[in-house]
Amino acid sequence: MFENKETTNLSAFGEFGLIEHLTKNIKIRRSSTLKGVGDDAAVLDLTKGKTVVSTDLLCEGVHFDMTFTPLKHLGYKSIVVNLSDIYAMNATPSQVTVSMAISSRFTVEAVEEIYQGMLLACDQYNVDLVGGDTTSSMAGLMISVTAIGIANEKDIAYRNGAEENDIICVSGDLGAAYMGLQVLEREKAVFKENPQAQPDLSGNDYILERQLKPEARKDVIDMLAELKIKPSAMIDVSDGLASDLIHICKQSDVGCQIYEERIPLDHNTVDAAEKFNLNPTTAALNGGEDYELLFTIKPEDYEKIKGHVELHPIGHIADKGAGYRMVAKGDAVVELTAQGWNAFGNEQPKEEE
Amino acid sequence: MFENKETTNLSAFGEFGLIEHLTKNIKIRRSSTLKGVGDDAAVLDLTKGKTVVSTDLLCEGVHFDMTFTPLKHLGYKSIVVNLSDIYAMNATPSQVTVSMAISSRFTVEAVEEIYQGMLLACDQYNVDLVGGDTTSSMAGLMISVTAIGIANEKDIAYRNGAEENDIICVSGDLGAAYMGLQVLEREKAVFKENPQAQPDLSGNDYILERQLKPEARKDVIDMLAELKIKPSAMIDVSDGLASDLIHICKQSDVGCQIYEERIPLDHNTVDAAEKFNLNPTTAALNGGEDYELLFTIKPEDYEKIKGHVELHPIGHIADKGAGYRMVAKGDAVVELTAQGWNAFGNEQPKEEE
Repeated sequence: MFENKETTNLSAFGEFGLIEHLTKNIKIRRSSTLKGVGDDAAVLDLTKGKTVVSTDLLCEGVHFDMTFTPLKHLGYKSIVVNLSDIYAMNATPSQVTVSMAISSRFTVEAVEEIYQGMLLACDQYNVDLVGGDTTSSMAGLMISVTAIGIANEKDIAYRNGAEENDIICVSGDLGAAYMGLQVLEREKAVFKENPQAQPDLSGNDYILERQLKPEARKDVIDMLAELKIKPSAMIDVSDGLASDLIHICKQSDVGCQIYEERIPLDHNTVDAAEKFNLNPTTAALNGGEDYELLFTIKPEDYEKIKGHVELHPIGHIADKGAGYRMVAKGDAVVELTAQGWNAFGNEQPKEEE
Repeated sequence: MFENKETTNLSAFGEFGLIEHLTKNIKIRRSSTLKGVGDDAAVLDLTKGKTVVSTDLLCEGVHFDMTFTPLKHLGYKSIVVNLSDIYAMNATPSQVTVSMAISSRFTVEAVEEIYQGMLLACDQYNVDLVGGDTTSSMAGLMISVTAIGIANEKDIAYRNGAEENDIICVSGDLGAAYMGLQVLEREKAVFKENPQAQPDLSGNDYILERQLKPEARKDVIDMLAELKIKPSAMIDVSDGLASDLIHICKQSDVGCQIYEERIPLDHNTVDAAEKFNLNPTTAALNGGEDYELLFTIKPEDYEKIKGHVELHPIGHIADKGAGYRMVAKGDAVVELTAQGWNAFGNEQPKEEE
């Protein structure tokens, strides 16, 4: 027998019913969560340290494209990008609240998929989903997440603590998420031309996963603690290395010098960039969405990370007057600019020569 | 000379520039705010009690209509409705984070207006705006606010603490915001028919203000503290008296009986209802957006609020088997139903006979 997969219209539930339906299976993991979903507000015990709070908004057509974004991945990513901000403070996330605006073209099953992805991320990172609001939108899907975390005051890494001669480090590798997006955009264009075509995503698993289902670098925070390193400044790479490094420099009132050959790139990123006739360094500098951690450490901590497989020194903090510089592979010095990503101007990252 | 009021396109700023521009004048009032806007996350000291967290989403075309909603009021209201949830826990709000998705038809000046309204509310209620995200949307304006507050654990009023014979009370008056909305909708319809027509809002100041610029009942929390009353259960009236009372009853596993003649109505609400040929009780039961506090108290506390000008006993908690009942003015007993407000079904409150 065929299974008849039924779909349910959102209006069948109504607002209360839907929220109840979505939240009924939520488990509470943290002893700091005294009361989760279901009252006017959640109740938390955040007395064991300082609290960090961050909020992010993901909008359809701006931050994600429903044509190629699996809903469960989208839910997962919406939590992860917020947790990434908490880790970027050198803190441990403990709770999230979630608001969703959904156009009526979505079914209850679609919303469930998103929620499943969110709860999977909560499970993976050991955080509690403690509150939320779900409503309809005029057009498109919008997900707003607020993440709460906790840290000892002395451990918190702000953006403004970098000092001259500090070593600039980045975790993992950069530019992959941007190249993953290029592949998805290409296949979307092919599909538009010929709806019979099967998308060709083969061999791109790594960069696609980096785009569609990124992870936050909890492990890097643990590594730093183990190495007894407190970053003098830290940020997560959401807008691209150039833009996020400039954030640190501006807030710390310093300049910087990084070395192109030190920027960590995965070979899949390099391969894909080659196929697209793009410079992989550009993808790293301006692509964004890597959710790696970019941080500075004291020169005396350098020995602790030297040769570390996940933590890569890429340059150093300089005097403010030095500006924001990259020594390119041919030894030419280029100025870094905060292209980042302009949600209002829809600018694409540009090649930098 | 005419003043040339210039408008600025959102893309002129870009995402970082806009956020910087909007947040540069934010003042920090609370000693619990260690770091506000400007890093990956805000840093708070919430060690002095238990923390309460609530989140709400307001969407254009669903929760507000740009045709008749002044932007500054909208910003004000978006904060107030969240603070109302914090007060409904018998807690004191201390911080908010704000996310906005804005379609490109908005100018920088328009977004500034919204922000001004938000900051005015923060000023009024002594809370800090500590974080936010501003981005573009495919269509429409969307505002997501997360509010954080603090309370002593023993003071927190949940929805689930109501017991048989507790007195059901409500602050202020009900139904006004809904009647204000009817006036605005009427004038919008008139304007659509004849764009030369001037809107006739005269004599409706009170109900219009209740709709467009509601206040959260901080004063009621203070009154209760002064009267040494801890509500056994509390909720804010956002969906209508019937719906919110049923929330308390369901979560407390009890029934209720209220008396129609005890439901507080302002004379402006009654007058407007009459003109619209609506039953003002219906506006109170199912209109919503009153942001009054609905709470239950122990019978022994009744003497403390008897005759209070702002706190009105409207009935009592009954055995679960009694259901949710209202004794109507003619002594008929009617069943209360949670019409509330279905953001997905676009149902209008219905007359209840």
